Amino acid sequence: MAFDITSLVFDARGLIPAIAQSRDGEVLMLAWMNAESIAETLATGQVTYWSRSRSAFWRKGETSGHVQKLVELRIDCDRDCLLLVVDQTGPACHTNRRSCFYTAVREGEEIVLCEPIA
Amino acid sequence: MAFDITSLVFDARGLIPAIAQSRDGEVLMLAWMNAESIAETLATGQVTYWSRSRSAFWRKGETSGHVQKLVELRIDCDRDCLLLVVDQTGPACHTNRRSCFYTAVREGEEIVLCEPIA
Repeated sequence: MAFDITSLVFDARGLIPAIAQSRDGEVLMLAWMNAESIAETLATGQVTYWSRSRSAFWRKGETSGHVQKLVELRIDCDRDCLLLVVDQTGPACHTNRRSCFYTAVREGEEIVLCEPIA
Repeated sequence: MAFDITSLVFDARGLIPAIAQSRDGEVLMLAWMNAESIAETLATGQVTYWSRSRSAFWRKGETSGHVQKLVELRIDCDRDCLLLVVDQTGPACHTNRRSCFYTAVREGEEIVLCEPIA
């Protein structure tokens, strides 16, 4: 079946959450996309999100160089969430950590799992 | 630092997206939690989401038996998304597939990556 972006389920803002996962399985981040950013990502092979704060394309890594090359786009059963398998250049997180999910809750305490890449 | 649920960033509905990932790295699903379902999950060790359609606790696997045992809860850098590392019993998806992300887009076509567990 041909993929049709309009078959996805967007929220009231026209957005859909997108999980970025590295090829080796690490969950890197969650951000949001709209129909145009999905089309842009598929057309260019470089992940482009939608910035909710700027209401503009967020070409991941455009200023930092920490780009995400799309390996595969996947859709969930309800068609209201995307999984982007990516090749991540450098850290995905703006704190310079590989993943944004670097804080764990263990026995009621927050534990930082990794330090920024030097 | 002690973990304080009120330090998380919930949306206007009081919800936060939660990604469930198996211990071996597979992204299983994305669902939503509110403060009460996070507290319930931490207290019981069994993942409980918030059902947006029913406006009630969604104790994952309560009817299907396909429960998720919490291995670790992680928080992202913006504190507006959770990653739940889980031990998944049976399939996570209501279609009886291990993961909800079983559809890939390849060269403009939708490809089903796996079949339901028999």
